[in-house]
Amino acid sequence: MAEEEKKKLAMIVFSGDMDKLFAAFAVATGAAASGMEVTMFFTFWGLRALKKKAVTGRGLLGRLLGLMFRGGIEKASPSKLSFGGLGRWMFKKMMRAKRVPSLAELRQTAIDLGVKLVGCQMSMEVMEIRREEMIDEVEACVGVAYFIEQAQQSDITLFI
Amino acid sequence: MAEEEKKKLAMIVFSGDMDKLFAAFAVATGAAASGMEVTMFFTFWGLRALKKKAVTGRGLLGRLLGLMFRGGIEKASPSKLSFGGLGRWMFKKMMRAKRVPSLAELRQTAIDLGVKLVGCQMSMEVMEIRREEMIDEVEACVGVAYFIEQAQQSDITLFI
Amino acid sequence: MAEEEKKKLAMIVFSGDMDKLFAAFAVATGAAASGMEVTMFFTFWGLRALKKKAVTGRGLLGRLLGLMFRGGIEKASPSKLSFGGLGRWMFKKMMRAKRVPSLAELRQTAIDLGVKLVGCQMSMEVMEIRREEMIDEVEACVGVAYFIEQAQQSDITLFI
Repeated sequence: MAEEEKKKLAMIVFSGDMDKLFAAFAVATGAAASGMEVTMFFTFWGLRALKKKAVTGRGLLGRLLGLMFRGGIEKASPSKLSFGGLGRWMFKKMMRAKRVPSLAELRQTAIDLGVKLVGCQMSMEVMEIRREEMIDEVEACVGVAYFIEQAQQSDITLFI
Repeated sequence: MAEEEKKKLAMIVFSGDMDKLFAAFAVATGAAASGMEVTMFFTFWGLRALKKKAVTGRGLLGRLLGLMFRGGIEKASPSKLSFGGLGRWMFKKMMRAKRVPSLAELRQTAIDLGVKLVGCQMSMEVMEIRREEMIDEVEACVGVAYFIEQAQQSDITLFI
Repeated sequence: MAEEEKKKLAMIVFSGDMDKLFAAFAVATGAAASGMEVTMFFTFWGLRALKKKAVTGRGLLGRLLGLMFRGGIEKASPSKLSFGGLGRWMFKKMMRAKRVPSLAELRQTAIDLGVKLVGCQMSMEVMEIRREEMIDEVEACVGVAYFIEQAQQSDITLFI
């Protein structure tokens, strides 16, 4: 199938909660596996899914956000049932028992399937996250206009 | 109008919060009433909207989720203002006063209008929810590929 | 470009959290700036973004909602990091430092760019918000059928 005929999916990943990130990557990899061209635009809390390791900004909020986000994608907690980390631990345990991939594995699958990962430039500035703190596979740090352009041509658009 | 010409809506229902479930069913029934073909794909916390009664898994998280979800759709709390159940009680009271349908009534209307309700197989496994614990009207328990296929052909796609 | 050829975006703004409202208005103004026709359908907690000032209903929940929503759009707190107002204060400080517009400024930009702001009639009734408590630029208070109609013709649909 020619590039221009491919069906497209564009999603905004706003949430940094483990369960929502899981849903985002499950939809993205599912779509890519079925031959779609997929763009994930990470903004606000979603940016943690692109971090290499601890993000530490210079200002007070930057440092606070760094603390909250330390450890990157594997430390994300579910939006419910967090219980100071207990929810995350149990979820991971159950997911392993059911042979469900981890967030980091799902993200790698997305990368392997050619899902385009882009970061929101403005959120990165406000939250004091630098390009070098993000995984190398991030394709670009762009403005909202980039998402709009991709989404206009897409068959599926989602805000997660 | 021929089946293949119908406009379509496909939504992922991820949230189990009363207010978001209400929004999901209000959009779904509104769309179906206007002649659209509607598919609701329930995943994670959203699965509670399909439960018959208390869901109890075998493992620790399964039992805990069963406790959180006991009572099914009518026991869902709003995402804000929950106050240990008080928010739900007040919301219901006000909604009744304004003659707004309850969640269970809205769900029944959706079923009557032919809205297709499907459950996410993987979430059901992780959360230890069995098919027989869900209402009979659930059409199928499927993978994310099913949602992708429906959404590709849809005019409206939403993640709630 | 003729009116009927314009690309369209329709979004449901369900959330009243500062960060999500910010994302909603950033996407809406970005889309409008690129020449799209944009409709924002505000429902539930999202209605606070249309308030002039304190909303006070007559019933208990109405008064409670009025308290939560006092101050309108500028008093919205982020969904994470709220710390009794501290999160909002820090966010605003950082956003000003980075010359990011405030929510009220973004909303004004949306209005200036012709973004159509509509309120959900049913939510307004349940939450006891009257038309005169909302900013004059709100175009109409409508039912969900209006959103469905707009969304059917839209190239991008989002639930925020």
